[in-house]
Amino acid sequence: MPSVSNPIITLTTDYGTSDHLVGVLKGVILQILPHVTVVDINHHVVPFDILDGALAIGSAYHYFPPRTVHIVVVDPGVGTQRRPILVTGEQHYFVAPDNGVLSMVYEREPQVSVRHITSDHYFHTPISNTFHGRDVFAPVGAWLAKTYQTEVFGEEITDYVRFSLPRAKPAGAGIKGVVLRVDTFGNLMTSLTMDDLPETVIAEGKIKLQIGGKRVEQFTRSFAQGPAGEPIAILGSSGFLEIAVNQGNAARALGVSRGAEVTLELA
Amino acid sequence: MPSVSNPIITLTTDYGTSDHLVGVLKGVILQILPHVTVVDINHHVVPFDILDGALAIGSAYHYFPPRTVHIVVVDPGVGTQRRPILVTGEQHYFVAPDNGVLSMVYEREPQVSVRHITSDHYFHTPISNTFHGRDVFAPVGAWLAKTYQTEVFGEEITDYVRFSLPRAKPAGAGIKGVVLRVDTFGNLMTSLTMDDLPETVIAEGKIKLQIGGKRVEQFTRSFAQGPAGEPIAILGSSGFLEIAVNQGNAARALGVSRGAEVTLELA
Amino acid sequence: MPSVSNPIITLTTDYGTSDHLVGVLKGVILQILPHVTVVDINHHVVPFDILDGALAIGSAYHYFPPRTVHIVVVDPGVGTQRRPILVTGEQHYFVAPDNGVLSMVYEREPQVSVRHITSDHYFHTPISNTFHGRDVFAPVGAWLAKTYQTEVFGEEITDYVRFSLPRAKPAGAGIKGVVLRVDTFGNLMTSLTMDDLPETVIAEGKIKLQIGGKRVEQFTRSFAQGPAGEPIAILGSSGFLEIAVNQGNAARALGVSRGAEVTLELA
Repeated sequence: MPSVSNPIITLTTDYGTSDHLVGVLKGVILQILPHVTVVDINHHVVPFDILDGALAIGSAYHYFPPRTVHIVVVDPGVGTQRRPILVTGEQHYFVAPDNGVLSMVYEREPQVSVRHITSDHYFHTPISNTFHGRDVFAPVGAWLAKTYQTEVFGEEITDYVRFSLPRAKPAGAGIKGVVLRVDTFGNLMTSLTMDDLPETVIAEGKIKLQIGGKRVEQFTRSFAQGPAGEPIAILGSSGFLEIAVNQGNAARALGVSRGAEVTLELA
Repeated sequence: MPSVSNPIITLTTDYGTSDHLVGVLKGVILQILPHVTVVDINHHVVPFDILDGALAIGSAYHYFPPRTVHIVVVDPGVGTQRRPILVTGEQHYFVAPDNGVLSMVYEREPQVSVRHITSDHYFHTPISNTFHGRDVFAPVGAWLAKTYQTEVFGEEITDYVRFSLPRAKPAGAGIKGVVLRVDTFGNLMTSLTMDDLPETVIAEGKIKLQIGGKRVEQFTRSFAQGPAGEPIAILGSSGFLEIAVNQGNAARALGVSRGAEVTLELA
Repeated sequence: MPSVSNPIITLTTDYGTSDHLVGVLKGVILQILPHVTVVDINHHVVPFDILDGALAIGSAYHYFPPRTVHIVVVDPGVGTQRRPILVTGEQHYFVAPDNGVLSMVYEREPQVSVRHITSDHYFHTPISNTFHGRDVFAPVGAWLAKTYQTEVFGEEITDYVRFSLPRAKPAGAGIKGVVLRVDTFGNLMTSLTMDDLPETVIAEGKIKLQIGGKRVEQFTRSFAQGPAGEPIAILGSSGFLEIAVNQGNAARALGVSRGAEVTLELA
């Protein structure tokens, strides 16, 4: 068995999986780095949606081994002046457009170094104006995972684009948040976190939430504890409060989707 | 080239591929076992559907090399008292919740040993109540594929959960079965098998099936032998009788879905 | 680190990813060739659609390293007399049914050698009539990637099936083409290429296209240069003219789908 691990590269994009784009990224990577392990994190980021991309990579990257290179391509500005960047965190590397898609990474990492990628001899040529995943991000990620030398790719910058993730806010006698995303099961991930919950909620299993004109009153420890068909609140695996229906679809049951307001009554 | 093969882990879940959950499983596995080959069998098991999960893993696992570790997560009872189990078959290993999702494996394997996984120092901590794929099944599968020592994970049990797969049954002058699943092409996989068919059907290519109020009368050896637009019966690649339409969609043409009754007339 | 690269096999099929079929292909490959790297190019080729399959593999294969083996299974004639073939190009190998699905490969490669695969001891037995991906193409691809000896699989043939890809044609004072495919973002890939465009279009950024009863008048260098909501023409990453809407869905905006006519006015 080889004594050194293969380098690991992950991919997070809004390319979908109904055409050959993701396959092409992997081909380009394998040309540069034949022994790589490439892992798909998510190719179904909502198209052009930087917040959704930020949540995807921000929720997943820290489960990977140190020195993993994460390529993130949600890139509505492809072909414009927006910069490609290389970000070095405590244990992970990121290659992405400088449009804020790494905002949740910036929040989680104690410290980052950000470089503007300018060394175009690492690019796949000719460089198109429409597919920088293939021509910029995949080859740079592969070259990086070959040597882990970041300084050769370009100068450090400090004015990189960064936005704040939606936070729950006080509103009257409660706290107001939003649905950040809807998962495969129809569970609603909200912007409310553990910290927003009074201790009594956790102790007593009772909560007062309003969403989509309906009320959610039970806080349970597992999905299966929810009474059939009733929406429940639960602490999700990413640390956010989620609204779910036991073996059902909360998004459909409540008739809400991403962006919907959710209010936690504290009175 | 390395002289020893990489360990192989497969994944079968109902997580879908529209978010980062599957990527997280792979990150957790790679942290423990960097040289693993991870293969997706199916992440589109019908959500919470243990029978569909049982068919997926039961139809696929024996195509993999000996000593493959199969992680199966269709787990409506996540966070409750249902046990996590480790199953050793003749040549394969399985890690799954003890809810019957391995029932088809139990049917196919001449003998199995089943252990209740209790050694929580192999778990990913803190253990959530909602994502045991990440916190229990993926790390246990990875540790298992590192050493193939099963006894360290917990005691052997015999009262594991197991159900019988739907079988075709005699009904009047015929045999009654159900549609077990609908595949990508709209082909209907039924619970009827080769053994249920009279030899004349195979010899003469004529069959008498009723399904969704319609009749299927041709039994062909390949999809392409079916007359355009007409439903045909065919022996599917998993050994079950299937109903298909040549270059068409039988589910749509017949207006039926999973669970639909199908009757084979023997008169 | 091993001194020799792992062999690479790619998969392009119309199997979808909602069942275990693709997983089974990988299991069969790993049984024969444990150190392989398997890459999915696309499993969402339009079912039974040989042109769509030809575009998928033809657009992607050349991004992979030399000696990659590409398995392509879009196979409406499975179980009939259509031949399985092995194609050797300049740097790549292909295993596919002989139904024209490699037509774009034949166009791109300066020279090919095509063999009729007849050595059935490389097949997975018993051979079904419905799943030659598992029984013929996957095992032959794996054995090929093990030795790169092509002559053992069967005799060379010259009468292999090949069709011409749709080309734009002169029509009155213009050129008429079709929409070849619609991508994930709703972008329309047309059969018009760079060569069909007058230099003034590229220089001035103005074009006269008709499609779906509407007009497209801007030719831009990047998606983001398009005015919000307006359809634009752009040179796509595969070399074909595409019609897109900046951060929108052109297929929906124009109400057209695959096969729609597009006319370029040259007057």
